[in-house]
Amino acid sequence: MEEELLMIPGPVPVLPRIREAMTKPMIFHRGDEFGAMYEEIVETLKDIYQTRNDLFVLSGSGTCAMEAAIGNLVSNETKLVCITIANGKFGERFGEIAVRYKADAVTPVNVNVNFEWGHSIELEAVKEALENSSSSDPKSKIVTMVHNETSTGILNPAKEVGKLARKHDAVFVLDCITSIGGDKVPVDELGADIAIVGSQKCLGAPPGLSALSVSEHAWEMIRENERRPYYMDLIAYKKSLEKKQTPYTPALPLFFALHEALAVIREEGMENRIERHRGMAKTVRDAVTGLGLRLFPKLNEVSDYSNTVTAIEIPIADGSITDEQLRGGMRKRGVIVAGGQGKLKGKIFRIATMGNITEREVMKTIQVLEEVLVGNEFIKK
Amino acid sequence: MEEELLMIPGPVPVLPRIREAMTKPMIFHRGDEFGAMYEEIVETLKDIYQTRNDLFVLSGSGTCAMEAAIGNLVSNETKLVCITIANGKFGERFGEIAVRYKADAVTPVNVNVNFEWGHSIELEAVKEALENSSSSDPKSKIVTMVHNETSTGILNPAKEVGKLARKHDAVFVLDCITSIGGDKVPVDELGADIAIVGSQKCLGAPPGLSALSVSEHAWEMIRENERRPYYMDLIAYKKSLEKKQTPYTPALPLFFALHEALAVIREEGMENRIERHRGMAKTVRDAVTGLGLRLFPKLNEVSDYSNTVTAIEIPIADGSITDEQLRGGMRKRGVIVAGGQGKLKGKIFRIATMGNITEREVMKTIQVLEEVLVGNEFIKK
Repeated sequence: MEEELLMIPGPVPVLPRIREAMTKPMIFHRGDEFGAMYEEIVETLKDIYQTRNDLFVLSGSGTCAMEAAIGNLVSNETKLVCITIANGKFGERFGEIAVRYKADAVTPVNVNVNFEWGHSIELEAVKEALENSSSSDPKSKIVTMVHNETSTGILNPAKEVGKLARKHDAVFVLDCITSIGGDKVPVDELGADIAIVGSQKCLGAPPGLSALSVSEHAWEMIRENERRPYYMDLIAYKKSLEKKQTPYTPALPLFFALHEALAVIREEGMENRIERHRGMAKTVRDAVTGLGLRLFPKLNEVSDYSNTVTAIEIPIADGSITDEQLRGGMRKRGVIVAGGQGKLKGKIFRIATMGNITEREVMKTIQVLEEVLVGNEFIKK
Repeated sequence: MEEELLMIPGPVPVLPRIREAMTKPMIFHRGDEFGAMYEEIVETLKDIYQTRNDLFVLSGSGTCAMEAAIGNLVSNETKLVCITIANGKFGERFGEIAVRYKADAVTPVNVNVNFEWGHSIELEAVKEALENSSSSDPKSKIVTMVHNETSTGILNPAKEVGKLARKHDAVFVLDCITSIGGDKVPVDELGADIAIVGSQKCLGAPPGLSALSVSEHAWEMIRENERRPYYMDLIAYKKSLEKKQTPYTPALPLFFALHEALAVIREEGMENRIERHRGMAKTVRDAVTGLGLRLFPKLNEVSDYSNTVTAIEIPIADGSITDEQLRGGMRKRGVIVAGGQGKLKGKIFRIATMGNITEREVMKTIQVLEEVLVGNEFIKK
């Protein structure tokens, strides 16, 4: 049987050479060989991030790193306001996590700046939230945002929100899980104090690892928090990194694979890689609109279409095709695309163009999509 | 260069067929293929656990599962007492985690029943702690213990402590990270409400996954806790398992490997596997005492030597050999054994006999140890 083509926003298909790297025998996780590999991974990721901040790799998914960010900064003991900006599922996840760490019935310490899923973030509302949520301590705000909102295919204004956060001396947490490695994300220039990436997205590695960078501004807040999570304790990660180790046993085969995936990225070059990602996303957008479908995101002057995942409306209003007909039809032809999540289930579908996917796979996806649309008489031939 | 022989208590050497399993292409983590695999893993682990409780696999190390246990049961909002029994590094870790989740300066809600590292747990002290730490709510205690204390090579009295916990209606959390898969651990019979295993120990899989079982007794307490951690939220795991999924992206290659590792275990049979582990540990104990070394654990009537890792005193008192001479000498000869952790650094070394290690590797380890002892004139030939 032919392999299925995964065109979902992670896990992405993984090149054979990267999968082969996982067959290496286990090594002593406190030895020099691991140390050298971990250091090289960290340094390469810092280059990709364009950051001078500390950076760590966690043995856990992107959600693990999102919780690491919130949990290390926030606790009921710390006097801070957590402002979560959201226009999709993953933006809202930050808000859900914040409630677990800091829920106070008396003072509203969690401020959600929510926009309709698929709509753009409006800077005016962010500005207002920052101005109105003043606290006794001026260094007491954190702002979270998802850079590339995978649930809706929108690229959020990291630079602009970063500027606003800096103006209010807030710690800016940016989820770049599905942008770093595929799009331009100059972390320090964007003013992201904590920036997160997942292994199984644009980096082209298998799922199971995530990384995050931490600025001095974020450390100041983290050091004040004695109720940090344990497995994700960033201070423990920092101490261990000095010995080129992780605080708890690392998921070795995934480190071998990430190391190889980063070698692939170095060989391609980040400029070329970003160009390729942008090209593939544009191909998808052009093709689907050419087929008579509509893109889901509602853009404004500071937002853009995602360069790594395209969200497309299922033309249910026309009664012409259902989610099951569309995605089920594509699946039968060997191509897996993603559905809508949560309240968007059945309303949109999503084609990811992440990692080491090429134009060839993109063309196959488009061709299969067209076949299904023709088969369901959405397009008359 | 010849491969190094890892005789440390995880990561253990992984059989080629288990490593090969990780070269499989990524699959859709919300599809039927993953569901079937996850279900098979869960059911096989339940057999090995001898449990009828729920069981989940986390994409994180054993420490992640330890935190999952504590964090799901305990929060500042819940009125419970957390009694952590410890006679080594990992037992104390439960206490360290509990403080992160429940620190109250007014009422002492965390009770540490600590014994010297390497000494045995005394049931009288456990009994006293359970009796004295009464709370307004009779269903408000949790007791944690490490079954196989890897840091000191001691097997703690799970059955006896389980009985005491049950008598006081306490939820019993048992860390079986390095016993399940290599020793007899009938979880339900022992009365363990939450039992934890790590992938990279006696199960013989690579590091990065852990599993834990949850009894109805534990669920009752978990449901009361609204401040559960997010990535490790066991209620989210339970909901997802109904759809044969994990709440967040699973570390796919590690699931492929664990699936294969469990096939290896089924082929060997658990009875044979336990017999093999016990035999190997006995071989090590007999050999090292025969070489004039002393075992580290101080046993009492309810404790035993670990059947998966042997802790041995480095004869520094005699001035005859140092940690670096001993372990460094063995490393030069291709065998990695573990040192002492924390306050035991330089005082003991540890030989693990876990997973798919055979008598052949055990014999090689002993031979190399003897060579080093002879070379350093601890033994005169």
